[in-house]
Order: sequence, then C-alpha cells, then structure tokens
Amino acid sequence: MYNDFMKKQISDKVINRLTLYHCILNDYINKGEEYISSGQIASLLRIDDSQVRKDINLLNNSGKSRVGYIVKELKKSIETTLGFAKNKRAYIVGAGNLGMALAKYGNFANYGLNIVSLFDNDINKIGKEINNKKILDVKELPVYVWQHYIDIAILTVPAQFAQSTAEFLVKAGIKYIWNFTPTVLNVPDDVQVWNENLMGNFLQFTYDIN
Amino acid sequence: MYNDFMKKQISDKVINRLTLYHCILNDYINKGEEYISSGQIASLLRIDDSQVRKDINLLNNSGKSRVGYIVKELKKSIETTLGFAKNKRAYIVGAGNLGMALAKYGNFANYGLNIVSLFDNDINKIGKEINNKKILDVKELPVYVWQHYIDIAILTVPAQFAQSTAEFLVKAGIKYIWNFTPTVLNVPDDVQVWNENLMGNFLQFTYDIN
Repeated sequence: MYNDFMKKQISDKVINRLTLYHCILNDYINKGEEYISSGQIASLLRIDDSQVRKDINLLNNSGKSRVGYIVKELKKSIETTLGFAKNKRAYIVGAGNLGMALAKYGNFANYGLNIVSLFDNDINKIGKEINNKKILDVKELPVYVWQHYIDIAILTVPAQFAQSTAEFLVKAGIKYIWNFTPTVLNVPDDVQVWNENLMGNFLQFTYDIN
Repeated sequence: MYNDFMKKQISDKVINRLTLYHCILNDYINKGEEYISSGQIASLLRIDDSQVRKDINLLNNSGKSRVGYIVKELKKSIETTLGFAKNKRAYIVGAGNLGMALAKYGNFANYGLNIVSLFDNDINKIGKEINNKKILDVKELPVYVWQHYIDIAILTVPAQFAQSTAEFLVKAGIKYIWNFTPTVLNVPDDVQVWNENLMGNFLQFTYDIN
C-alpha cells in the first residue's frame, strides 16, 4: 500500500499488471516464442482481454503484427515506460533470512534496483558477503548514505526494532523506506513508506476459505 | 494481485487497510494505550480521516467512546470480521532464505495462518527444523497434502523451478498457491494464485525517483 498522494501518469494498478506482463514476456523469450497475443496474457492472469489491450495501448509500443505483439519489443516498451533503466540505489537494513533472501534475489537489477550493501548489528555477520554485497556495521550507515547517494532503505529488521530503526534511517537522510516489517512506521511527511503488507495480502487471498 | 473474480463482502482495499489498522492497534496495546481516534490512524497511514471511519463502520464494532475507539475492542472487531480465527493450514515449498524467513515470521499464527512444515529437495536440509517446523522431502508432498488437509502452498522455489513445482502441487490437490516467485504460473482455473509481485510494488513505490 502506498502511503502518499502523488500524481502519476500510470496508475498503480496498471504498473502492477505491466510488471506481470513483463514476467510472462520473459518466460516467452526463454521458450523462444516470437509473438504473444493479448488473449494469451489475459488467460494466464485471468483478466479481461480488453484490459490487456488497454494497458498495452498506454505504452509506446509499435511492435504489433497480425499474429500478435512482438515479444521482445513489447518487453522493451514496458521497460522504457516503467523506467527500468533508471538506476535506483538501495541497501538492506537487517541481514536476517528475509534480508538475505532479498540480497540474493537475482531479478532486482533487471528492474533498476541496485542493492549496494546490507547493514546489521550482529558482529558475526558484519564483514561477510552475500551475492557480492557486503554486510556492514549499522553504525556506519549515516556516513555511508551520505557518501553513496542511496535512495532507498529496505527494512527487514525484527518488528520490535522497526520504529527505532526507521527513525535512525530518517536521521541519516533516507527518503524512501520499503517496509517489510509488520509495523506501521511513524515517520515525517517527506519520507515515503511502502508497506509490504504480507498479512493483508494473505487475508485477501484466503478470505473465502472456510 | 488477485487472480480470480470473486464476490467479497469486503473489498481487497478495505481488507488491506484493516490489516494495517490492526498493526497500529497492536503497537498501541504494547504501549499501554486504551483509546485511539480515527485521526491518529489516518495520520500514521496518511489517508483521510473519513476513510478510516468508513472502514471501521463496516465492522461490528461497539467500542466507541468520546475519547476514541477502545483499542482492544477495535482490534477484536477487525479479527472477527477478517476471520483471523479461521485456521488455515499451509506449507512452504522451497526452504531457501525466503522460505526460512517466512517459516520464522512470528506473526502468521495470529492471523490464522498455520505453517505446518517446509518442503525441499536438498538432502542437506531435509530433516532439519526451523521454528519447530520440519523440512520434509518434497517427494513426500502428495501423500502429506492428502493426510494433513493442507489448504495453501507457499511457493518460494527459484524462479526457474516455479512452473514445474506449481504443476506438481496442482497434481497433489492444492487449490491455493501463494506465489513468491517472479513468475506468472499457468495453472487450471480452479486453482487460485496470489502473486506477491515484489517488482511491481517496487516500481510503483519508486516511480517518481529520478
């Protein structure tokens, strides 16, 4: 859930769907397919064909033939429109299992997310490397943010330390916090927070299970 | 993103917000606060006060006083409405860092999500325990699903194995897949998939960063 009001050219829902189309296009490229129809995308996502066409019309996509969209061109159009090429620098705060999982997640760089390093306060972890990213002492964080032009902090500390860590990040100058903790953070208005609300998603998903 | 069309009494957006209110109420309880106003909730989430009141009016909540909602009663109302008490059984498929992180995530049980065990094909992992949950051989999965009335599979395998694992889960009788892989799964219509579309969220969140 997005915490702030902002005018966007493309709505959040469309961005979300376009990212899923992009996943499908990657699969098609891996399978050596050259073309894809809006119906094929719609069927995989169980949404309406017309919705897919409408979303694709928002892109500057010219690669359309009688047999469907040209997979590679459609993929490129999505990447241009969503700004995959804009490189955003981030670090992970909390090198537990979730932090490690995100550090290893191979896909991020393709989407313009460059995870530079991890931070933790555990001396057994500090100095180690995960996926070529060093785990640094969280005490060094303020100097580091300032030196490395970091845009985003990915917060993966235990819930009970979430608020105090967020305050520490704000003091260090961070303006974007991607919050993976099950906590609603209290931060100044100019700091934007995206809550990865796993339990909310779970409850939506399973609402109809008796 | 939800993959299916279904009639719900409460919309996905409201469920999502109610879960965040629930997080805030937990914080208030930990801090020993007895009352909370809609304005306090609204300000933390940067949404409109009237929105919060509207959402709360959907609940059977009677605990309102002049100084605000009674924290404990509001929390209980949310839990009743969203079905936290309905116990749902799940297992994790893929005991990598993400699977481990989810297995350790202390909060799930409070929301009715009972993670029974993990599955993996790595003989170095099989037999070990994480947070009192055993890592079992994925070959045993079909018998296990049948014996233990498992509702949900949480898919945390590497992306390249996502589709084949999903097919294996479908054959085993699973009807709900919570998909943490960056893959759009191709499964029969009676199987429901919730895509935890991390990259989509990231792109929505960071759309305005230059």
